[in-house]
Amino acid sequence: MKETSLRAGELQFAYTKRYFEEFISSRPKFKKKMEDVETPSLLIDLEGIKSRYVQIRYHMPEVNVYYAVKANDHIDVLKALAEVGSGFEIASIQELEKILSLGVPPERVISSNPVKPAEFVRFAYQRGVNRFAVDSYPEVDKIAEVAPRARVYVRLVVPNEGSEWPLSRKFGVDEETALSLLEYAKEKGLVPVGITFHVGSQCNNLRNWFIAIRNASRLWERARSRGLRLQVLNMGGGIPVRYMQESLKVEDIAYYVKGLLRKYFSTPPYELQMEPGRGIVGDQGILVARVIGKAKRGDENWLYVDTGVFNGLAEALGGIRYPIYIERKGDLKEWVVGGVSCDSMDVIAKKVYLPEPEVGDRIFFLSAGAYTTVYASEFNGFPKPKVIAL
Amino acid sequence: MKETSLRAGELQFAYTKRYFEEFISSRPKFKKKMEDVETPSLLIDLEGIKSRYVQIRYHMPEVNVYYAVKANDHIDVLKALAEVGSGFEIASIQELEKILSLGVPPERVISSNPVKPAEFVRFAYQRGVNRFAVDSYPEVDKIAEVAPRARVYVRLVVPNEGSEWPLSRKFGVDEETALSLLEYAKEKGLVPVGITFHVGSQCNNLRNWFIAIRNASRLWERARSRGLRLQVLNMGGGIPVRYMQESLKVEDIAYYVKGLLRKYFSTPPYELQMEPGRGIVGDQGILVARVIGKAKRGDENWLYVDTGVFNGLAEALGGIRYPIYIERKGDLKEWVVGGVSCDSMDVIAKKVYLPEPEVGDRIFFLSAGAYTTVYASEFNGFPKPKVIAL
Repeated sequence: MKETSLRAGELQFAYTKRYFEEFISSRPKFKKKMEDVETPSLLIDLEGIKSRYVQIRYHMPEVNVYYAVKANDHIDVLKALAEVGSGFEIASIQELEKILSLGVPPERVISSNPVKPAEFVRFAYQRGVNRFAVDSYPEVDKIAEVAPRARVYVRLVVPNEGSEWPLSRKFGVDEETALSLLEYAKEKGLVPVGITFHVGSQCNNLRNWFIAIRNASRLWERARSRGLRLQVLNMGGGIPVRYMQESLKVEDIAYYVKGLLRKYFSTPPYELQMEPGRGIVGDQGILVARVIGKAKRGDENWLYVDTGVFNGLAEALGGIRYPIYIERKGDLKEWVVGGVSCDSMDVIAKKVYLPEPEVGDRIFFLSAGAYTTVYASEFNGFPKPKVIAL
Repeated sequence: MKETSLRAGELQFAYTKRYFEEFISSRPKFKKKMEDVETPSLLIDLEGIKSRYVQIRYHMPEVNVYYAVKANDHIDVLKALAEVGSGFEIASIQELEKILSLGVPPERVISSNPVKPAEFVRFAYQRGVNRFAVDSYPEVDKIAEVAPRARVYVRLVVPNEGSEWPLSRKFGVDEETALSLLEYAKEKGLVPVGITFHVGSQCNNLRNWFIAIRNASRLWERARSRGLRLQVLNMGGGIPVRYMQESLKVEDIAYYVKGLLRKYFSTPPYELQMEPGRGIVGDQGILVARVIGKAKRGDENWLYVDTGVFNGLAEALGGIRYPIYIERKGDLKEWVVGGVSCDSMDVIAKKVYLPEPEVGDRIFFLSAGAYTTVYASEFNGFPKPKVIAL
């Protein structure tokens, strides 16, 4: 291994080791579980999740939090968040049923997916969910038909170059269209209540918040001048968690966002909303797997593990770099980490520096709380990771 | 729309329309089902699957076919193939259990995943499965320990530039290492029986077969000169099916492969194997979905459907282009087709030319028989497509 990459490797391993040890030392229940749990399993820290929620609320008490259920829809996670009073952001009948089964009042549920199956809107509205995002005329027509008099908020497109999971043009409209949609919704008998935007998931660039809030305020003012009294500013998700590097702190996002709101909204919106998913659960879970093989391929060292990109680690394909740790000592080697399936696309990470493990060793994927088990299939017959909430 | 793209669009739509109409006209049961089935559903033609198997066997009677279960593991598909005498290629306990539940003798089962969980190897060996791929020393050790005297074949790496789903360096070794592994397996008490390679899934380049067979023959001869009497040449998968363009025909692959075998193998291997997955089921399935929304985004027209890349169409992210059809007339428009989830990565296709549908219309994804439902998660709470075998 070259000098420079060896040095980078040492730093990487030191980071991962410290992260792992801190995580474990503050969570005594995890230690034993990680040693004897069947693999692959996702261990989730419910207290940690509640703390993250409380932390966000503490730093931004004026913002209502609607947890984005898609990030991790395990019932214990939802229950823990319901207990501390979280709201929920959902997109499907199945998600809503889970939330309602916990006794969460439908007023604490919103749906920010701008394009929704009509049956879902009807189902949700009948059960008392009354806030839906829109960003197209057919969506307004649809909601007006199946959920007359529902409240709608428009999804404004904002640039999100600074996010590690940038959004495509799939959702969101420009200011002109947004304004016109709010008016169209009113014509159709719906109640236009607000604006939503999304700075991009895992957003480590504060500047995205600036552009989003400034643009939203412009739309807000123009809507007001047309006689539309908006009430809700939904600021979407985007709160990042640490993966292979430290992330922005909630505290700093809070200072920045509050400063912006003060500057751009002379009268604060009646309700401020955020809908973090990853930001609440992302670094509160560890995926415990096992090494099932090793191989030298040309100049590459490969490690094979009993999980993979079809088994929960799909975001690895999109660039998310999970800290990966094993409890071994010894010289570091650079590894490519391959998944369990016989699909050659099933590669979890490259340039991972670890001491050499033995086949059978446990291997830990940190920050695996969000967008893992929810993406998992049973491809190749391998069961999804078990989720164990502690 | 510009003149040139309009012309391209007309050709595309004509291709898709013809494909759709031919598919339907030869499958009378499909017509009605497509109109009233719940969406999303994958309709699979069992007779078509059997025909594909028979066709491969007809053109290559000297080759034993082991269907790659991972491509579509629906029990009716496996049953249909078991009925016509297919063998099966598997990678997990779950896949094996399904196969054995159909009464398939374990001698008709092989496992070509070069890196396997030890429990799987033990489980399979205890039930009579006796042929496993290897491409690393730790794998040989593992098999020797849990499946003593098992037969092993070595995975040789071959270039596969011409495939639409090229393989990474995840699997396969060079000739030298392959030879050494075969000898190592023998030392460990295993029976080195052969060689396997993979030209890449959806391989439309005959040249890949040339390189693979030539290289395999070299290894074969070298193994023989070291006193290893190999018996099995496993030629992997790679038989393509049509997506947005016609693919190589099985017939032509057969001529070519047989010509190569004659040239490069003076004595034919005792057993020739292929393990097509996509090549058998790929174009025997239609995913029936519905349009749930439409939007104009800048200069892009977006269609939203009630399925998506997390719901079965994951290969769209890797470049597979499903022919997409709706039963409407009218001027063609260029569309981006977005999936049902509120994930902005969930985009199925761009540059799709279709007449404008209404929200609620059925939309058909052709050639959706392979690597669809097996990759599906229940992300965002949306159920996986139902699989309906006809």
